[in-house]
Amino acid sequence: MVTVGVIGGGQLARMMIPPAVNLGLDIRILAEQEGMSAALAATAVGDYRDLDTVLAFAETVDVITFDHEHVPAPILRELQARGIPVHPGPDALHFAQDKIAMREKLSEIGVPVPEWAAVTNADELSAFLADNGGAAVLKTPRGGYDGKGVRVVRSADEAADWFATLDEDGRGGALLVEELVDFRRELAQLVARRPSGQIVAWPVVETVQKDGVCSEVFAPAPRSAGRVAEMAEQIALTIAETLGVTGVLAVELFETTDDRILVNELAMRPHNSGHWTQDGCTTSQFEQHLRAVLDLPLGATGCHDDHTVMANILGGPTEGTLADRYAAALEAHPTVKVHNYGKEPRPGRKVGHVNVSGSDLDEVAYQARAAAAFFQD
Amino acid sequence: MVTVGVIGGGQLARMMIPPAVNLGLDIRILAEQEGMSAALAATAVGDYRDLDTVLAFAETVDVITFDHEHVPAPILRELQARGIPVHPGPDALHFAQDKIAMREKLSEIGVPVPEWAAVTNADELSAFLADNGGAAVLKTPRGGYDGKGVRVVRSADEAADWFATLDEDGRGGALLVEELVDFRRELAQLVARRPSGQIVAWPVVETVQKDGVCSEVFAPAPRSAGRVAEMAEQIALTIAETLGVTGVLAVELFETTDDRILVNELAMRPHNSGHWTQDGCTTSQFEQHLRAVLDLPLGATGCHDDHTVMANILGGPTEGTLADRYAAALEAHPTVKVHNYGKEPRPGRKVGHVNVSGSDLDEVAYQARAAAAFFQD
Repeated sequence: MVTVGVIGGGQLARMMIPPAVNLGLDIRILAEQEGMSAALAATAVGDYRDLDTVLAFAETVDVITFDHEHVPAPILRELQARGIPVHPGPDALHFAQDKIAMREKLSEIGVPVPEWAAVTNADELSAFLADNGGAAVLKTPRGGYDGKGVRVVRSADEAADWFATLDEDGRGGALLVEELVDFRRELAQLVARRPSGQIVAWPVVETVQKDGVCSEVFAPAPRSAGRVAEMAEQIALTIAETLGVTGVLAVELFETTDDRILVNELAMRPHNSGHWTQDGCTTSQFEQHLRAVLDLPLGATGCHDDHTVMANILGGPTEGTLADRYAAALEAHPTVKVHNYGKEPRPGRKVGHVNVSGSDLDEVAYQARAAAAFFQD
Repeated sequence: MVTVGVIGGGQLARMMIPPAVNLGLDIRILAEQEGMSAALAATAVGDYRDLDTVLAFAETVDVITFDHEHVPAPILRELQARGIPVHPGPDALHFAQDKIAMREKLSEIGVPVPEWAAVTNADELSAFLADNGGAAVLKTPRGGYDGKGVRVVRSADEAADWFATLDEDGRGGALLVEELVDFRRELAQLVARRPSGQIVAWPVVETVQKDGVCSEVFAPAPRSAGRVAEMAEQIALTIAETLGVTGVLAVELFETTDDRILVNELAMRPHNSGHWTQDGCTTSQFEQHLRAVLDLPLGATGCHDDHTVMANILGGPTEGTLADRYAAALEAHPTVKVHNYGKEPRPGRKVGHVNVSGSDLDEVAYQARAAAAFFQD
């Protein structure tokens, strides 16, 4: 049997289990702790920053892939040196791990990005603010997600704590500062690429964030046919090929009020903006990721319906579990597909999502929101 | 967390794992042995005919359901006596376990069945043959599946070995003899019913058997709109309600050359004729079965496409594994969904299936057959 090893035991690893079962693949997961979202297939528990832990796990599988981007590059290089395939590999993953490296690389290859700079002190930040209308987005280059490690600043004082941390680290690091993009909406473009080069794209989607966290996805992005869809796809294909990404690549995009498409963030793994593919597409992002990292031919990305809307379940009920709400939610919404990550409810935490498909966008969006609301107080 | 217990570790149990993961249900399986198709979720291994084994397993779950119909009724009654829900329950399951009881019951409630009789000796069989054109189908009332325990006979001599076995059993048992139905094609109607009564139907499908084993399913059954679909659905709804079936009920039907619809067999569990729902319907039979046995509201049964065709992978490759064929099969058929049961290839064995959907029935059928052929020598 072919064995896929996934480092990280969160919901992305969990959602690889159904397609692995369907395809008869043995999926093994190195989880951070017991009882995580992907516990059903967790064959090891340990620290992904520990070489011996990762090596011992990797020796039981045919290929290593990830639930997140945080495994240190030296560990991944050691795996490769021992002949264990790693997808995406550390050379590509570097650009998902380090936002400054990503900005440098995308600028170099001519992919449109917001104005940006790497700043190491208050003076540099002040200069950038002065050049960019007095407000900017400041990001820690590593470890941020779901709105963490990101803040809007209007003066260098607002970044004093982060600059202090940089000094403490003593690594001579920098912060990434970017123009505050005046955008009409946010889009995401997913593609998947095999090591041997085959690459496929799903339709571009519109994503809606709430407090820095994805709350809804509309697939395909409404009013995107033609130029927007083509630009988004071309950007993602260029990035995947130029950076040598293997597996799923998610490119978060801004559609600006002056009709530009700019790259916001990259993720080299299945991504929240692709959860709609589980129920809306011939091949889900999770199945495609498994096929890609095994260098198997990729599946068709056609849609079942005109529209699919995904709504995240954020936080979950303040008392009890998601399953306590099934009787009411499923009764009211028989066409909705519920995905429950098996995580303890906690304010703001992604604990599940719903997908709904149909031909009427308003109706589908209503169903998704109304169903998700059953699981949140 | 809600915990579903499945007795039996075959592919039907395996295919309940993906929807259980999606819905955040804890699924636990009592497998007959190690390394079975559903091993990923097997929390116990043992003999389902042993009361203590089943009791120990049942104490770890909230509801008991099945991968097959062979658990003895006294064990199920003991579970019920201890307050453990069993779906389908032994009163309903009796009619799926014993074909003579099924024929008696369906005749009693006015559901159309072939001419039949329970025969205990050669004279009774000869009399039935004389009354029914000299040929008939003889069945052992219990334990048959996939063409086993079924034979066509033209004289009582051809049943001598089975009558001898009846005598050896000393249980005063009988064989079921049925008219050799002159049928145009075979159909199957699936419905799902909750303990509290809600019931839903999928579209009737056409099934094609090869050597007594299902080889292809066309969904919905071509040229079935109107009378045929209505009769098939009404028959299955009547059976589910009258017999008190809970979970998925599959009713295998004959469409006769004189335009009657007759019940052939019943199965009270997900069924091969419903595998197409995994990729062709809003709610698959496996998800629906879990929802039904938990008495949760049932999901919509609409189809993604005009046609879905399922083709079984029978036997598998003579050398190597199904996965060895993925590179070629997936390359040629990017729209095909492959389901690999993780079983050792063996002549005639059901080791997997493929589903394909689309708007052109001929094209879809071609894709399904061609893809399945990649996995068989």
